Amino acid sequence: MSDPHFKRIAIIGLGLIGGSLGHAIKRGKLAERVVGHAHSEATRKRALEIGFVDEVVPSAAEAAKDADLVVVCVPVGAVGAVAAEIEGSLKRGAIVTDAGSVKNAVVRDMGPHIPDGVHFIPGHPIAGTEQSGPDSGFAELFDGRWCILTPIPGADREAVAKLAAFWEACGSRVDYMEPKHHDLVLAIVSHLPHLIAYNIVGTADDLETVTQSEVIKYSASGFRDFTRLASSDPTMWRDICLNNKDAILEMLGRFSEDLSALQRMIRWGDGDGLFQLFTRTRSVRRMIIEAGQDTAAPNFGRNPTHISDKKS
Amino acid sequence: MSDPHFKRIAIIGLGLIGGSLGHAIKRGKLAERVVGHAHSEATRKRALEIGFVDEVVPSAAEAAKDADLVVVCVPVGAVGAVAAEIEGSLKRGAIVTDAGSVKNAVVRDMGPHIPDGVHFIPGHPIAGTEQSGPDSGFAELFDGRWCILTPIPGADREAVAKLAAFWEACGSRVDYMEPKHHDLVLAIVSHLPHLIAYNIVGTADDLETVTQSEVIKYSASGFRDFTRLASSDPTMWRDICLNNKDAILEMLGRFSEDLSALQRMIRWGDGDGLFQLFTRTRSVRRMIIEAGQDTAAPNFGRNPTHISDKKS
Repeated sequence: MSDPHFKRIAIIGLGLIGGSLGHAIKRGKLAERVVGHAHSEATRKRALEIGFVDEVVPSAAEAAKDADLVVVCVPVGAVGAVAAEIEGSLKRGAIVTDAGSVKNAVVRDMGPHIPDGVHFIPGHPIAGTEQSGPDSGFAELFDGRWCILTPIPGADREAVAKLAAFWEACGSRVDYMEPKHHDLVLAIVSHLPHLIAYNIVGTADDLETVTQSEVIKYSASGFRDFTRLASSDPTMWRDICLNNKDAILEMLGRFSEDLSALQRMIRWGDGDGLFQLFTRTRSVRRMIIEAGQDTAAPNFGRNPTHISDKKS
Repeated sequence: MSDPHFKRIAIIGLGLIGGSLGHAIKRGKLAERVVGHAHSEATRKRALEIGFVDEVVPSAAEAAKDADLVVVCVPVGAVGAVAAEIEGSLKRGAIVTDAGSVKNAVVRDMGPHIPDGVHFIPGHPIAGTEQSGPDSGFAELFDGRWCILTPIPGADREAVAKLAAFWEACGSRVDYMEPKHHDLVLAIVSHLPHLIAYNIVGTADDLETVTQSEVIKYSASGFRDFTRLASSDPTMWRDICLNNKDAILEMLGRFSEDLSALQRMIRWGDGDGLFQLFTRTRSVRRMIIEAGQDTAAPNFGRNPTHISDKKS
């Protein structure tokens, strides 16, 4: 196994992912020095206060200078500009990676800015919460979660192995994919669920016959689960939609087709068809729990008594 | 406040709701004797073993005999048959209620079987988990959750007050609605979310380009949240679809319309429109947390370390 340690790591973007990465690097003692950069001065200041970076600098170029590993943790719509900015400061032999939820567009936007002799290995830790900002990060975010690396053809094997070892030391399990396939997989496991969640919360918010206060009060009957995903960072999700258009439209098309079939079963009272669908989906949950990707506790283990401590 | 105690309570249907109700009655010492009935002998035997009822009987009629409160906790497609069966055994002055997720159909199917002098007050505790069966019940299920009563015109005020006091003693907060309005509210806060969840899990299961094992492995990026709702009891959900058709079709229609608009924004790269939608939905989550209807902890408080204890 490769050595997961780096001398100097630059984290560009200090929100949930960048912050959690900083915490995980500290926990694993994976770098001698962690330099951070974020666009906003307040974020930089806060990151330093929390201490998941050793130093913050006002430009991405400065952060990347002399770094052995540069991890770009900004919304995918901004990775191209960051790459252009750091292009001149990257040191020979450095590894540049990212954490974006789409990979084809990242290869397209960052790729041309990576100088010869620098190892560009796009990546995507499949981990997150609905929260954002430097205060939302924590060291355990990546524990037991998958991190997908999508090395481009001709990537240096040693550099890929070193980056994989690094993510494993951060708690992740590492997998490899083609960028295009990654984007298709993420379209169904992540992008479609988020869009559906945003959509249903929007639909509920627009009703004239049911008040917002009724939606809130009775949300524990199902609706509340969707509001978690629908409170994720808007910039991040706008950029994902704009940068994984084809795969998302493909999945939305399939979902809508299936929804029309379901609607038809309800309209025509096809009890057997409904029962069959509702039975088939149960086993998927079981497999997710067996794979260690969710808790087996009912209601995600939410404690009803804790929740009701805060009464309206 | 009315006295929430009853001499003899009959629970018909001993699954998640009937079981939890039995536990809550025991916890609050709300009855001198709890008699239970379930269709399946194994369920009856198990209920008695667990002890959330004092006695089980092989017929609904026998359970209802001499009961002061009869709570029907079976799928809404079966409430009419249960009402027909207990019709002859109901004692004058008894209260009959249910726990079904639709109310108009319950009034239609049970109403004609309720004799004069018996108080029929349909109800719906807005509480549950994705699990089912007698082992899934627990006393705290109703704590802090709303219970909606939909008394029919001319309902006896004292009986309604007594039933409300009973649900409050089980931990619930009580609200009142017209059956038709209840069905509309539940269509958006519960029925639509479940159908959407069942649908997306079905769509993912049908893909040829992404394998099932990929869907399972990377489900923590959003998809897994939907699988919880999509593992709920198939019979219960079939019956809800068949018995709240109009309201569900109305909500599905609105949802599909909105989804088409969202799809169009993605196709045409309308970043501002996407950003606006994704921002608006955030505040709904905040209000739900403030109303005590969900936990504020990120990821519903799921502990990544606990989850990853079980590795595939």
